[in-house]
Amino acid sequence: MVNFAQRILGPTLGLAPCSSSRSHSLGRTRLRNFPCAVSSTSSSSPMDRQNRRQGFMEFPHLSAPHRDLMIELVSTMETRLGSQLLPDPLPLDVQCYQNAAGTSQGALHIRPGDDTSSIEFILGSWIYCELPSGGALNITTLMAYLNKSTDAPNFVLEFVQMSPTSMVLILDLPPRKDLPLYPDYLDTFYVDTKLDGCRQALQKLPEVQPYFSPVLYVRCVWSPTATVVHIQCEQGQESDQARMEEIVRDHVSPIAKQVLGIWLDKCACGEGREVKESERSELERRDRVIRTKTIEIDLVSNLPRLFGPDVGSRIVNAIQEFLNK
Amino acid sequence: MVNFAQRILGPTLGLAPCSSSRSHSLGRTRLRNFPCAVSSTSSSSPMDRQNRRQGFMEFPHLSAPHRDLMIELVSTMETRLGSQLLPDPLPLDVQCYQNAAGTSQGALHIRPGDDTSSIEFILGSWIYCELPSGGALNITTLMAYLNKSTDAPNFVLEFVQMSPTSMVLILDLPPRKDLPLYPDYLDTFYVDTKLDGCRQALQKLPEVQPYFSPVLYVRCVWSPTATVVHIQCEQGQESDQARMEEIVRDHVSPIAKQVLGIWLDKCACGEGREVKESERSELERRDRVIRTKTIEIDLVSNLPRLFGPDVGSRIVNAIQEFLNK
Repeated sequence: MVNFAQRILGPTLGLAPCSSSRSHSLGRTRLRNFPCAVSSTSSSSPMDRQNRRQGFMEFPHLSAPHRDLMIELVSTMETRLGSQLLPDPLPLDVQCYQNAAGTSQGALHIRPGDDTSSIEFILGSWIYCELPSGGALNITTLMAYLNKSTDAPNFVLEFVQMSPTSMVLILDLPPRKDLPLYPDYLDTFYVDTKLDGCRQALQKLPEVQPYFSPVLYVRCVWSPTATVVHIQCEQGQESDQARMEEIVRDHVSPIAKQVLGIWLDKCACGEGREVKESERSELERRDRVIRTKTIEIDLVSNLPRLFGPDVGSRIVNAIQEFLNK
Repeated sequence: MVNFAQRILGPTLGLAPCSSSRSHSLGRTRLRNFPCAVSSTSSSSPMDRQNRRQGFMEFPHLSAPHRDLMIELVSTMETRLGSQLLPDPLPLDVQCYQNAAGTSQGALHIRPGDDTSSIEFILGSWIYCELPSGGALNITTLMAYLNKSTDAPNFVLEFVQMSPTSMVLILDLPPRKDLPLYPDYLDTFYVDTKLDGCRQALQKLPEVQPYFSPVLYVRCVWSPTATVVHIQCEQGQESDQARMEEIVRDHVSPIAKQVLGIWLDKCACGEGREVKESERSELERRDRVIRTKTIEIDLVSNLPRLFGPDVGSRIVNAIQEFLNK
């Protein structure tokens, strides 16, 4: 779940890790200031909690436009839903973590909804892993799950970067119903909202191509308007990185804000989607199957591989424990 | 249903009809021999029925490799399932039809399964419409639907041509279950069969791009391995048409035969997919909703537009009557 995006890594991705010289320049500099690097994992003072949240919100390995976008999206979500959100319940050493060598870092931020809310939880995460082959893997995620009081779609945004000039973007409101059976649901959340216009706008750029995850299950959970694309600015020129930043600022950023706005208005804060008591168990079952399966695909094998077995298991177990509460 | 493919026609298709000089040369010549043009619609002698089936199997407006492919696929399907298939129950003036001016023609061939079969029906169709703007629309379809004795996927193949150098291809085994809820079903029919390899192979060609139907409902009914592509050979050269024929012969044809083979082996003639009595009504409901909705999208508005209200309504009504039996 935390690294939802890792499911899209695989032999058909065709993204070679960038050479370390092309990694984003912030990477190494920031390692020294990373909260996990300066405080013990058992500390839990209010100041330390605050530091760790700031650590998450720093997004130290992203380009400026990308970081600005993530900060704005998380802030928008937390501001709009703020009164319904509870504090992050995760242990501090799950909120920030790194491997023994300090070459991989991660931050995880979860806010459950309170009893009056339709929010199950929101989840923000980033992972930065220097790879043995050189280069680095950089995954940034923002997701929001609704609970069984509504059947409205969830929200997912994920960036998977293998270099400063190549990334996969997933931006979607994954449906919580079997769409072929519910044309009205499709009309309400996907047709009437003109969500497909966001995907179409981005795909007009020559650097943008549709992306097909090698994991078929993952393709099944996305909506028909999902923006699932591979952005490549690889002309072999010095300006490639600047072009990628321009695309994030001028093209990705507006549609990400638009999709989040639609989700906040129509799904998280929308009305009239109350689910009948008799249908809640089926909705809950579907949500649970998808969550279990995606965690299995995303985390169980990948996190231990990227962070070592001890750290990886700690994160996986903490998330599973949170979800099974 | 008959022109399942028309759902993909729309403002975002971006396929301009070809000029009439670029239409396939067989078109006008064959009009004189079209069965509907030489016999009255009320005739129903065995000879006439035979002529009409031959009319369907002639595919008079397709290029040679395209026609060869369609004949081989229909023959393979009918040979393999032959003993389970009943005769075509449609009125003769629905099996072959044309508009008053003779500028639009269509043929429709349906074979229901018998009581012992898992086949609900197979359906073959072609439509050829000269457009007022010049050029012609050419749609060729082969579909097979299973009944509620099994939950295995259906089969669909459709070509939509707006010119001899540009076509949309849909090749899929549309699932009959809500895939995110049934990972085992996904594994059985889509992962283990390596169906995605067919899509991947075709998309390696520079002339082939993923195609997004402007009708969102249609996107929802396809599987995650659906080959839904736009093939364009439009370099402005005389060899463009030959290149399209080469692609159909050397690339489309092998994967279409492979997908049909998988469907025949694993779905139509596969074993072990018996559906429990308690689950049959839900399966039947899902099948019915999808069928009703796709007919509405495909036929109700399009056929009268292409063939005039009288002929269009005749075909739509006959199909609806057959489906509601």
